[in-house]
Amino acid sequence: MPELSALLHYEDFAVGDSRDIGRYQVTAEEIKSFAREFDPQPFHLDEEEGKASVLRGLSASGWHTCAMLMRMMVDGYLGQSASLGSPGLDELKWLKPVRPGETLAARYTVLSKRVSAKRGDTGIVTMRWQVFSTAGEMKMEVVGVNLIKVRSP
Amino acid sequence: MPELSALLHYEDFAVGDSRDIGRYQVTAEEIKSFAREFDPQPFHLDEEEGKASVLRGLSASGWHTCAMLMRMMVDGYLGQSASLGSPGLDELKWLKPVRPGETLAARYTVLSKRVSAKRGDTGIVTMRWQVFSTAGEMKMEVVGVNLIKVRSP
Repeated sequence: MPELSALLHYEDFAVGDSRDIGRYQVTAEEIKSFAREFDPQPFHLDEEEGKASVLRGLSASGWHTCAMLMRMMVDGYLGQSASLGSPGLDELKWLKPVRPGETLAARYTVLSKRVSAKRGDTGIVTMRWQVFSTAGEMKMEVVGVNLIKVRSP
Repeated sequence: MPELSALLHYEDFAVGDSRDIGRYQVTAEEIKSFAREFDPQPFHLDEEEGKASVLRGLSASGWHTCAMLMRMMVDGYLGQSASLGSPGLDELKWLKPVRPGETLAARYTVLSKRVSAKRGDTGIVTMRWQVFSTAGEMKMEVVGVNLIKVRSP
C-alpha cells in the first residue's frame, strides 16, 4: 500500500471534476462465467438463448457490468485514495446491453461533496459514474457515494 | 427452460406481496476471489488488512453482496418468471459489512406495479429487496425494477 499521505484525500476531489478512469475488455467467457455463478439467466449464459431473448444477443449481467465498473474505479482512482467505503447508490440505470468483444471505458464526475456532520474526518463525495463502449454507446450510469478521508479535519 | 405458460407473469405479483427468496453461504475464499477480480481493495482481500480498516474485519465487496442477492433472486423467483430484464435501481444501501461464515437470506416486497405505457406486454414491477444475515442483521436494501411479461396484454 502507498503511504497514507501520498493518497488522494477529500480535498483532492472538486465539484465538477470529470476524469476517465480506465478501460475493460469484455469477453464471452467472462460473461458466461459470471452468469453461471451469480446470474444464471439464459440470455447471459448462451449465444443462441441470447439471440432469442429481448436482449437480442449474449449480454453481460447488469451486476457484472457493475463489477467491471468497480474494477475500473479501484484501478483508476480508489486504489490511490484514502477510501472509507461507500454507504450506497442513489440511482443506477442499465441503458444498453454489454456485449462480448466490446471494450468499455468509464468516467467519473464529482456532483457534490461535504464533510460528514457526525465524523469530521470523513468526506462524502457524490459521484456520477458513466460506463460506455469505446464505440460511443452509453451502457450504464450510476450515481452514488465514495467516502474519502479528510486530509486536514 | 420451463414452458412460457408455466412461468410467473406480471399478474402473479401483487403490491404488498413479501417473499423469502433464498439463502447464501458466504465464504472467505469467495470474498477474496471476487475481490481479486473486481474490487481489489485491501479490506476485501486479506483478514489482517480488514482488521486494520474502517470495516474492522474481512468483508465482502458491496458489489459481491449484490451478486449474491442476484443469485438468490434468480433461484428464488426470476428463473421461474417471464423476466424481461431490468432498467435499473432507484436506491441501494450497504448497511453492514458481510462477513465470511455468515449465511445470508433475502426477501422481496412488491412496492408498486404498472403496465408500460409504450409496450402493453411489459409489466414494470418495483421491488424492495432486503438482504440480512440469518442472525438478524440487515446488510443491504435495494429498491429497483423487474420487467415481467404480461400474461394477457
